[in-house]
Amino acid sequence: MNRLPIIPLDEIKACLRDDDILSAVKEALISHGRGDVNSPPPGILQLDHPAVGECHIKYGNQKGADTFVVKVASGFRDNGKLGLSPNSGLMLVLSAQTGAPVCVLDDKGWLTDIRTAAAGALAAQVGAPDKVTAVGIIGTGEQARLQAHWTCRLLGVKSVVVYGRNPEQVAQYVDDMTTQGYDVSIASEIKHLLGQCNLIITTTPSSKALVLKDDVQPGTHIVAMGTDNPGKQELDPALFAQARGIMVDDLAQCVHHGDLGHAVREGLISQDRAVSLGLVLAGEKPGRLNADDITIADLTGIAAQDIAVASLVWEQRRGG
Amino acid sequence: MNRLPIIPLDEIKACLRDDDILSAVKEALISHGRGDVNSPPPGILQLDHPAVGECHIKYGNQKGADTFVVKVASGFRDNGKLGLSPNSGLMLVLSAQTGAPVCVLDDKGWLTDIRTAAAGALAAQVGAPDKVTAVGIIGTGEQARLQAHWTCRLLGVKSVVVYGRNPEQVAQYVDDMTTQGYDVSIASEIKHLLGQCNLIITTTPSSKALVLKDDVQPGTHIVAMGTDNPGKQELDPALFAQARGIMVDDLAQCVHHGDLGHAVREGLISQDRAVSLGLVLAGEKPGRLNADDITIADLTGIAAQDIAVASLVWEQRRGG
Repeated sequence: MNRLPIIPLDEIKACLRDDDILSAVKEALISHGRGDVNSPPPGILQLDHPAVGECHIKYGNQKGADTFVVKVASGFRDNGKLGLSPNSGLMLVLSAQTGAPVCVLDDKGWLTDIRTAAAGALAAQVGAPDKVTAVGIIGTGEQARLQAHWTCRLLGVKSVVVYGRNPEQVAQYVDDMTTQGYDVSIASEIKHLLGQCNLIITTTPSSKALVLKDDVQPGTHIVAMGTDNPGKQELDPALFAQARGIMVDDLAQCVHHGDLGHAVREGLISQDRAVSLGLVLAGEKPGRLNADDITIADLTGIAAQDIAVASLVWEQRRGG
Repeated sequence: MNRLPIIPLDEIKACLRDDDILSAVKEALISHGRGDVNSPPPGILQLDHPAVGECHIKYGNQKGADTFVVKVASGFRDNGKLGLSPNSGLMLVLSAQTGAPVCVLDDKGWLTDIRTAAAGALAAQVGAPDKVTAVGIIGTGEQARLQAHWTCRLLGVKSVVVYGRNPEQVAQYVDDMTTQGYDVSIASEIKHLLGQCNLIITTTPSSKALVLKDDVQPGTHIVAMGTDNPGKQELDPALFAQARGIMVDDLAQCVHHGDLGHAVREGLISQDRAVSLGLVLAGEKPGRLNADDITIADLTGIAAQDIAVASLVWEQRRGG
């Protein structure tokens, strides 16, 4: 009987190139936008004892592909007290011919981090103003690092302005990103960051609006990454009414548990105003129309991204 | 970085004793009946190309336990043409302290088969008449073998009567079960089987009623295993109206996609007539009341069973 291959994180990292990840995630967002991905609503398990956490199960297939993917991703907020990342998990690749598992990707949640960052960078690029002064990052966690890195790299930008509530975490962020070669400055208030930057990425677990309409400059593009349940919020709902380009990775998810949902529930805009990020990436829908428009990309994370990166690893491994 | 342990099927089999499986599945059914298991609705992925199949994802935890479980189980009906079992899959055990996976059980679907058979045997025992003449098995697949084996063993019965549509598969079934030490006879019609047996187990993928009310003897107990989606059916809905003890592994599932659902949707009985199998096993609700009653156990398979067997393997492996 065949042993099921298990691919450890170091081997996963070794077989992926950043450009391939970006291409795969871009294709995934486009496929999802076109309706070519089969992905039922994710499963969510809430745990409260012995620790508080959530496990999200995303799964599906690119229609017609010879594999499908099941991704199990946990988020346990108190893991930091144990010296562990809050995020962990793995991905399974299974045969669409027989249903049998073909490999386990023991990625410890890394592929989720990376596919999220890649989608954020693509969403940043597609709505960015012609001249990006600096990338404004709100938040100081793992995604605050990855989003800055992937977006700066894709746009050829070196300047980052960061805002965080905890001064120690801000200082650590500046250290880490400076070591990576970025010019990082600190904003003491979000308002100051919004005054200095015309490309903003939010990566916090906030439960109230941080980015207020009146603080945002004309021509700014905002990528909202942090809000992934109805109780979280990063953007002033009034921003959605003012914005002229609203892009979503998945309309139903963003209305249900993204920042867009707050604006829709408050009756400030119709959800018809949002367009599929994938169709914008494909050139089939407009993103930014005018230099002075405020544009927003609201991302909640979709199974198509997981399917794309897991399939990429599997193809590399089997020499496809 | 720690390597994630993967436990192959031979090691899984080696560390489980039948009695431990029965005890664990019984406790799981009782816990589920008492509301002590946290198990959201399963995820279901339908695939149609390159092959027709389904993947079911069941997940959850025994409340307060230090692990939780995600089970991925595929059923691809045309696998037989490739010389493969239709069923495959694996189970994941994860830490309820950190959310991280702690092991992969590469059981190829075997644990699902076994936990299903164990639940069937327990459901057979709890409603069986005092004297079981022979166990009547309708169907000739893997569960038809396992159900007969586990039920006969639990009840101390040696006689099996089998009915199947395909004569070759019936002959193979008789060969296999005779080799295992059972006295097996063949019924040429279901009506004849129902005339000879007062304990019936149905294990088919039928989409119409096979067991008709007028053919069932007073005092018979029927365990309905095969129906697991709204399009499948094994029992005459009128049997539910006549039965005086109706047990279900999970009421919502059985109403949605078990045999009970047909009787409820046809308005023949109220779903309040069904009692939790777990509470019957716990002695908290009555099962069979009178020797002449017809009783039914309708089983759809619940995450609690998967959690129980996966946890059992993990505890054995870590020396718990």
